[in-house]
Amino acid sequence: MQGTKSKIRYLMTPGPVEVSPKTLNALSSPVIHHYSPEFIELFEETTEKVKKVFQTKKDLIIMQGEAVLGLEASVANILNPGDKVLVLDNGPYGAWFGIYVENHGGTVVRLKEDYNKAIDPDKVRAALEENKDIKALTVVHMDTPVGITNPINEICKIAKEFGVLTIVDSVAALGGIDIRPDDWDIDICICGSQKCLSCPPALSPISISKEAWKMMEDRKIPLKLSYLSMTDYRDTWIKNRKFPFTPFVSEIYALNASITEILKEGLPNVFARHKKVAEAIRDAVEAIGLKLWPSSREIASNTVTAIKVPQGIDDEKLRRIMAEKYGVLITGDVAGLGGKIFRIGHMGYSAKMDNALVTIAALEKALQEIKFPVKIGSGVEKILKYF
Amino acid sequence: MQGTKSKIRYLMTPGPVEVSPKTLNALSSPVIHHYSPEFIELFEETTEKVKKVFQTKKDLIIMQGEAVLGLEASVANILNPGDKVLVLDNGPYGAWFGIYVENHGGTVVRLKEDYNKAIDPDKVRAALEENKDIKALTVVHMDTPVGITNPINEICKIAKEFGVLTIVDSVAALGGIDIRPDDWDIDICICGSQKCLSCPPALSPISISKEAWKMMEDRKIPLKLSYLSMTDYRDTWIKNRKFPFTPFVSEIYALNASITEILKEGLPNVFARHKKVAEAIRDAVEAIGLKLWPSSREIASNTVTAIKVPQGIDDEKLRRIMAEKYGVLITGDVAGLGGKIFRIGHMGYSAKMDNALVTIAALEKALQEIKFPVKIGSGVEKILKYF
Repeated sequence: MQGTKSKIRYLMTPGPVEVSPKTLNALSSPVIHHYSPEFIELFEETTEKVKKVFQTKKDLIIMQGEAVLGLEASVANILNPGDKVLVLDNGPYGAWFGIYVENHGGTVVRLKEDYNKAIDPDKVRAALEENKDIKALTVVHMDTPVGITNPINEICKIAKEFGVLTIVDSVAALGGIDIRPDDWDIDICICGSQKCLSCPPALSPISISKEAWKMMEDRKIPLKLSYLSMTDYRDTWIKNRKFPFTPFVSEIYALNASITEILKEGLPNVFARHKKVAEAIRDAVEAIGLKLWPSSREIASNTVTAIKVPQGIDDEKLRRIMAEKYGVLITGDVAGLGGKIFRIGHMGYSAKMDNALVTIAALEKALQEIKFPVKIGSGVEKILKYF
Repeated sequence: MQGTKSKIRYLMTPGPVEVSPKTLNALSSPVIHHYSPEFIELFEETTEKVKKVFQTKKDLIIMQGEAVLGLEASVANILNPGDKVLVLDNGPYGAWFGIYVENHGGTVVRLKEDYNKAIDPDKVRAALEENKDIKALTVVHMDTPVGITNPINEICKIAKEFGVLTIVDSVAALGGIDIRPDDWDIDICICGSQKCLSCPPALSPISISKEAWKMMEDRKIPLKLSYLSMTDYRDTWIKNRKFPFTPFVSEIYALNASITEILKEGLPNVFARHKKVAEAIRDAVEAIGLKLWPSSREIASNTVTAIKVPQGIDDEKLRRIMAEKYGVLITGDVAGLGGKIFRIGHMGYSAKMDNALVTIAALEKALQEIKFPVKIGSGVEKILKYF
């Protein structure tokens, strides 16, 4: 069975995204031994390059698992039983952190916001003033199911005033939207390989501050010798150039190749490209007569556009037509939001103007086919202004 | 940086092993969405094929992580605090299970054997008779650091007489040495992608019996919504064709391709090939004047040959010469065994007679260079008998 059998030529989902030919080529490099000098060198080089994309000089580990491993680990490694965590919840992934906190013995203090709004830093301050014993805070930079970007810088700065450890899920933003773990006081910043880093799903790079390492070591029983352990990576790779187990050799090749492309383009250009594609898609969507899910354009994400499903429209049928007739894959909502949203991803290698053009053209045609009143070309015209 | 820069042309280590061109090609298939019909079909097909290599009709999950994730999870998912586990320990991975048991709240009853001997089923019976409250037993099919195969069938049959759940680490044997989870009463049988399955490191396929699922569901708090959870895979994939998180799309392509090659060759032929290569290497090693680590040839593994380092020989230098001059990578011992062993892996795609020939020729030449008294051709002559 070959992937090439797929009708999909435009992977416009919130991950996994399209992987470039160069990265796919690197992925298929002959497998070498993880303790060969070549692999140690590759892993060192990759880590240093990923740090540049993270814009950080902090320690960086590459957890060998999907991004949710990093999310769960960020909580599991720091909590002692009963520790209070402020969970900022304005989307499904925001809420999800609460499950991890409870599963690992912590107590959740939840700051819930409407799922079409961003977290308000003033409310964070109020919550921290009310709960002086909060140990850590979790927040999602960009919650893919709702396509909203939170003001991470302001939130983390406030947390630091209260001596609270900051955990940021930037899985679907880092590498597409500016984020600065060092300047913005982010203690644990988690990313995933299959979003803006344009790699296959498999890896979770994470930057970790000195304060976070200390909290992990100060845990009553530090989490060691576990797939969830972060300190295992420090004790092996960072301190001794060993690995806690056999790392994903092929996926590291891919990550190296992809990150090299990102750095070659230059981070400011990469962020500008994401912004441009996102603006174009938002303009087009509104011109077509659809409504964005976020309460305002200012908080709409530059990596995912969440769109309200118009009343009476079968969005599953809409997406099926786009996929089958035009080869463009977009996605629906996630469970629990009630079928109100469909989403266009524009992340990493998929965030291109030609992809945006084809996606909007396909959207128009598919909407027409299901009898939504659309003027063909109205969205495309907007895209062309940016093209 | 390209893997092809490596001088190593023969990856004769106990994993990762060589990956075939067909599998590497599949690995670099365009990334598709995990909920596209094509991927669901690929995942179904792959799971069914892996079941054939497992020779099982039980449920099979593919955990998205290195094999140690499967090992830790097998214990983490079943234990309640204080539950007693009989840990069969005749090698480092055998011992390792004890750490997982303790980390996840269990109590270890350790049956320790010399690291050059196999586990004696009679001793297992005696231990189970002495400890009537044992809930589960862990055993390694083939402990790579010592190259010894344990009598899994006898051990698990005895465990079942006592109603004890059986957990078998067959990471470095399954797909190279016969194992039958159904006929041999193995409740949880764990494998890894980078050993005899000849894939890159990244995946851990695991067969799970009804009794094991029941024990997981009967746990005081079933382990759910965690990277370590096995029931998450059941609740999502097995019951609903969903995934607990984004699976490793590319690695699944590779696994499908590699397993297809294994099934095409036919399992009896695959096992026979491993046996033949192992016998040839054992004959050659002894003809050269080296001694096998296992106390007898009967228990020596067909996937890894562990060899005693002769007195006065610097095995690191030996291995370096083999790697740099002849492009053959073998490995040393693992920490704690005290530099007494070096090892030749002959697993999966690396288990070939031509690889064996080059490896033994390189070993002879390297031994000569470091002044070990070796008659050049003495080992090669043995290999030629099987060639």
